[in-house]
Amino acid sequence: MEEKFMQEALKEAKKAFNKKEVPIGAVIVYRNKIISRGYNLRERKNNSLMHAEIIAINKACKKLKSWRLDECDLYVTLEPCPMCAGAIIQSRIKNVFFGANDPKAGGVVSKAELFKPNIFNHNVNVIGGLLESECSEILKDFFSKLRKVDKLQKL
Amino acid sequence: MEEKFMQEALKEAKKAFNKKEVPIGAVIVYRNKIISRGYNLRERKNNSLMHAEIIAINKACKKLKSWRLDECDLYVTLEPCPMCAGAIIQSRIKNVFFGANDPKAGGVVSKAELFKPNIFNHNVNVIGGLLESECSEILKDFFSKLRKVDKLQKL
Repeated sequence: MEEKFMQEALKEAKKAFNKKEVPIGAVIVYRNKIISRGYNLRERKNNSLMHAEIIAINKACKKLKSWRLDECDLYVTLEPCPMCAGAIIQSRIKNVFFGANDPKAGGVVSKAELFKPNIFNHNVNVIGGLLESECSEILKDFFSKLRKVDKLQKL
Repeated sequence: MEEKFMQEALKEAKKAFNKKEVPIGAVIVYRNKIISRGYNLRERKNNSLMHAEIIAINKACKKLKSWRLDECDLYVTLEPCPMCAGAIIQSRIKNVFFGANDPKAGGVVSKAELFKPNIFNHNVNVIGGLLESECSEILKDFFSKLRKVDKLQKL
């Protein structure tokens, strides 16, 4: 079941890829159904807030007409950054599943550990490494293509 | 000069107060001018993302048509939570001035230290305690009024 939802998050990441955005995707699940989706749109929207998770959380709050998403789970292809991890805490999301680690900017296990129990007034259950290879593959693919384009432009 | 801008953030906090929202306000300054303002609207908007800083950052990105706010400073009456501290890092905001500490949920000095140098790819300069007493006074006032209402409702 969890893998099925992460596959849906990967579909969102692919949408970002096709728009030349760093391919990260997320879905939010409520009572076993996807209620919102998001993918990274930072460049296209010229907006630092437009991460996959923030877009999905914004839509979920609107859908449920509540800032409390305490019956919701979030699936995201990359370890959330501190902004997104913080938004997850603010939303009281129950469970977070992520794919690849983000050694440079991750806010859950890599650069900060914001979901460590009993720091904040809400504890998030977190499982990393779900479909990890697919989730990191799409990122590697994106950055290798970007480097090729860079090299060609320098010729 | 810094105090003048924090006074403007306090004006935003007062708008939140008058709407029965936890009174926190923020302004963003670019080349010595306020380009965006925000105050907490979580309850009214039923949205966990609607913190003063997020609202102000969103508006500033739209105004400058850029996700990079690297020539901007942010003034906020309360220590940013991890979501807002992370959004400040994502936006490359240069300097952050905050008023009161948030011992329960602060992401800068209290519960996490996200602006500690050399963790992330952007270092934020931070100054806390600016107009601290005014900034904490409005919060105390809000919560004491809330408790009175609670007591009256229980009579």
